[in-house]
Amino acid sequence: MKIAFIGLGAMGYPMAGHVAREHEIKVWNRTTEVAVRHAEEHGTIAVERLEDCAAQDVILTILPTSREVDEIVEVLVPLLGEGGLWIDCTSGDPESSSRTAARLFRQKIGFVDAPVTGGTPGANAGTLTVMVGGTEESYVRACEVLGTFGSRLIHVGEAGAGHAVKAANNAMLAANLWTAAECLLTLKKLGINLRSALEVLNAGSGRSFVSESLLPSRILEGEWPVTFKLALQEKDLRIAASMAHSSHLAMPMIGLTTQLFTAALNDLGEGADYVEVVKYVAKMNGETW
Amino acid sequence: MKIAFIGLGAMGYPMAGHVAREHEIKVWNRTTEVAVRHAEEHGTIAVERLEDCAAQDVILTILPTSREVDEIVEVLVPLLGEGGLWIDCTSGDPESSSRTAARLFRQKIGFVDAPVTGGTPGANAGTLTVMVGGTEESYVRACEVLGTFGSRLIHVGEAGAGHAVKAANNAMLAANLWTAAECLLTLKKLGINLRSALEVLNAGSGRSFVSESLLPSRILEGEWPVTFKLALQEKDLRIAASMAHSSHLAMPMIGLTTQLFTAALNDLGEGADYVEVVKYVAKMNGETW
Amino acid sequence: MKIAFIGLGAMGYPMAGHVAREHEIKVWNRTTEVAVRHAEEHGTIAVERLEDCAAQDVILTILPTSREVDEIVEVLVPLLGEGGLWIDCTSGDPESSSRTAARLFRQKIGFVDAPVTGGTPGANAGTLTVMVGGTEESYVRACEVLGTFGSRLIHVGEAGAGHAVKAANNAMLAANLWTAAECLLTLKKLGINLRSALEVLNAGSGRSFVSESLLPSRILEGEWPVTFKLALQEKDLRIAASMAHSSHLAMPMIGLTTQLFTAALNDLGEGADYVEVVKYVAKMNGETW
Amino acid sequence: MKIAFIGLGAMGYPMAGHVAREHEIKVWNRTTEVAVRHAEEHGTIAVERLEDCAAQDVILTILPTSREVDEIVEVLVPLLGEGGLWIDCTSGDPESSSRTAARLFRQKIGFVDAPVTGGTPGANAGTLTVMVGGTEESYVRACEVLGTFGSRLIHVGEAGAGHAVKAANNAMLAANLWTAAECLLTLKKLGINLRSALEVLNAGSGRSFVSESLLPSRILEGEWPVTFKLALQEKDLRIAASMAHSSHLAMPMIGLTTQLFTAALNDLGEGADYVEVVKYVAKMNGETW
Repeated sequence: MKIAFIGLGAMGYPMAGHVAREHEIKVWNRTTEVAVRHAEEHGTIAVERLEDCAAQDVILTILPTSREVDEIVEVLVPLLGEGGLWIDCTSGDPESSSRTAARLFRQKIGFVDAPVTGGTPGANAGTLTVMVGGTEESYVRACEVLGTFGSRLIHVGEAGAGHAVKAANNAMLAANLWTAAECLLTLKKLGINLRSALEVLNAGSGRSFVSESLLPSRILEGEWPVTFKLALQEKDLRIAASMAHSSHLAMPMIGLTTQLFTAALNDLGEGADYVEVVKYVAKMNGETW
Repeated sequence: MKIAFIGLGAMGYPMAGHVAREHEIKVWNRTTEVAVRHAEEHGTIAVERLEDCAAQDVILTILPTSREVDEIVEVLVPLLGEGGLWIDCTSGDPESSSRTAARLFRQKIGFVDAPVTGGTPGANAGTLTVMVGGTEESYVRACEVLGTFGSRLIHVGEAGAGHAVKAANNAMLAANLWTAAECLLTLKKLGINLRSALEVLNAGSGRSFVSESLLPSRILEGEWPVTFKLALQEKDLRIAASMAHSSHLAMPMIGLTTQLFTAALNDLGEGADYVEVVKYVAKMNGETW
Repeated sequence: MKIAFIGLGAMGYPMAGHVAREHEIKVWNRTTEVAVRHAEEHGTIAVERLEDCAAQDVILTILPTSREVDEIVEVLVPLLGEGGLWIDCTSGDPESSSRTAARLFRQKIGFVDAPVTGGTPGANAGTLTVMVGGTEESYVRACEVLGTFGSRLIHVGEAGAGHAVKAANNAMLAANLWTAAECLLTLKKLGINLRSALEVLNAGSGRSFVSESLLPSRILEGEWPVTFKLALQEKDLRIAASMAHSSHLAMPMIGLTTQLFTAALNDLGEGADYVEVVKYVAKMNGETW
Repeated sequence: MKIAFIGLGAMGYPMAGHVAREHEIKVWNRTTEVAVRHAEEHGTIAVERLEDCAAQDVILTILPTSREVDEIVEVLVPLLGEGGLWIDCTSGDPESSSRTAARLFRQKIGFVDAPVTGGTPGANAGTLTVMVGGTEESYVRACEVLGTFGSRLIHVGEAGAGHAVKAANNAMLAANLWTAAECLLTLKKLGINLRSALEVLNAGSGRSFVSESLLPSRILEGEWPVTFKLALQEKDLRIAASMAHSSHLAMPMIGLTTQLFTAALNDLGEGADYVEVVKYVAKMNGETW
């Protein structure tokens, strides 16, 4: 297959490398130097003009938000022929995806939203989990590409469903994180040994990815790497809140978590890692980590 | 050691069986028949009068709440000699424990709060995790008893600290549960395949004990066993909220979770299992599971 | 001026009567009999076909939500000539209004959103307060009509601003109401005389329209008239929540109030009066009023 | 009557002046100079030693919190004879008041909790509203004193009921304030004229003491006087939250308001005025007033 891979960020860069081993690909990036470097490293073809992506069989996008995807859609869709496939690996907005899918459908082009989970380690190793929304037919076609970087491809529903599940995952992550931060700060104020407490929690029913994989190194070792930007996590939460709102649902925990993350983002700034909301929980209480 | 084991509920009954293999124990239960049955099964000595527990070296209590423990304390403490040890395995209230510890200290009696996690399977197998609050000396003495039913004994701090960590664990459990229920209901309303969605979530960063061990059988198979009463889970949440309040902390997520669980308890009733709050989340939205 | 008045509900009916005293008006209602009755009572001209409204100088709409307004817009806009004015007195959505204003602008037709406050007594007496969004020019033109039923016309900003202020008003009303319900239920549970308590609150800084004009007759006299449908109040809250969300704002109180009203609506049903959320607050606590 | 008036703060100072016109009073204040000044201005008798208050018929306390009242109780109660009356005008805690009332009852001393509303203007003018908890007999006796500074005395229930109603008043005030701040900030972000918006809101159903008497001068004129310390307002909210918690009630709005005020207090500091939480709402959104 001839593929145009659009977006060479922390995730996209290694993912495009995996795709390149099995497919002929052109790569495009907002900053062209990155595409040129990718071409040198992985034998891909760097293109400068977005329009030069239009001739490929498959367009794959992985960008910060659906807004950037929509901009690419505006440029490329008029140039695309029939019969192609658009794969959007962005952690995007289900409503945008549905609109894009419908638009492409009118041009006889398939669409799947296919966000991933597994972080940069999974992207490097090619062992990502991919949640896919779209028709059965588009899903089957997409698997040939998705399988190059994903070890687990899960078809979750119609177009937009992949983004919806990703947003739900990140909403759970966010609420689990904020609550754990509150509980650990409370224990700290009570003078309790947090290393022991985390050992208990992780042997107990309160455990989660958050308590097992995120908090120990931050809380106990004081390491605060930037692994996933708070701004993007907050964006995903806002997508989850929008999904609930559009479906006319009462979802107080998703709602409150979203409000708190927005406040934390305004305090911590765009550059912060999402786990740093733990520091904002402390700040609300006149404390620090 | 001569031990009085007070409270033969779903957890206490098998725990007392493990203790009996290595120690000489008297058992007391509010309903005496249960104690008599335990004596027949495990070779323990059933006592009818609480006062007959006073002569033992160690008093071990495991009761629904600190209120019941306090009642036992009122009866027994005046009868106890110096040098004994009180082990409270109840999921209790740190403030009550601190008061009891101080009172026993004046009589030269040690105290540890030692709530457990691992459920009835862990209690049956003798593989519970035990979080212990109290002085180093009391902790060391208590290990001889706790080790008979616990495979992991963790000393987390002063008297009350065990209860505090247990309350924190259950607050995290509760918030993780409620949020997961909201997210899954939202996905359901969007027409997404929940079996696939749970597969993704459990491969992803939103995963928790809740999404891995509690929700699949309820949501996908429709099995709603009573494993831990909602009334007790709600009580633990109220303890966590009290801890935060007493420490003058702003903890919006613990707070909201507690309010919602109280509302769910009033709707679902005392007999409900705690995971059934998932049904209340649906009811708030005119839906059912 | 020749005016088409569209929507003869509890508010619209008497408002159209006031307009008719000074202007020549056609009236249209989804149920034509109401329009016919209005024509008999007020000397207006009942029209059956919506399209017959298109020839008037001014189109005035007052409908349950912006959705119904949008449907009317779809039908009428293609039929309208240049130079007219559209006045929307619906408690609508600012985003819809902005879109409609822009669409009309391209056809050289003015637009104001002009929701009202004062209830049916104010509508009957012609003493409503009207909050108006739109250009200065459109506002001035609209005053000639609005002044027939409004004693206070306030220009609050551009198109959509009237709806935004109305949504903010109703969000404050809703939060004030829910909180007062919580406080009064707490006092009731403490055995406090609520008549005396309300007397104090209304002499104190906790007072509001809610405590002065809504709660005494409900709580003390047990009168629960339907004055404004909960479904409409909840819709306005959802508009306020959308406004905050679109502006990327952290608004925890608006958010929580909205979630709670949605849950109350699902419990109390479409026919309930909005003040009946007080009963839902009680139900969350196993109580009744 | 011979009265000991304890606590000459912003409220107590002028209140003691009114009492002095009709009764023989001794005044005590933590800082003795203030008592001396009061004696000079109002012909009262300044006492330095708290114990010298014990001989009076009536002890009247008005202090920052019940904690300070409890300290005075510890000192004075052992010195009091039978038949006296204790009037506590502090905005206190109902549970403390109940305990104090029970303790005094055993010594045949009456007790009323009698917090006031009306601010320093009401204290100066002697036109406060007083909400009184206690037995009918104690209430009647207290009226002779309370009537000197209160124009409206309302008996709301048993001992503690006055404090409970005061806490409820302040919880409503706080929630109304926070919500209004959110709504006005949202309108500001939408570019709406806030002077006009406030005019509308105060003609509409969203109005409250907050929107009528507090916000216009702050928001429109930029005046931020210290009228009532945020630390005291937050304390009253915490009392309301405790009342709800002790009564085992689900009160999400009281709960969230309390959490937010605590966070605001930690940010704004002890010296801030309570209305300044409006600034914290803005700060959560990267804005300022």
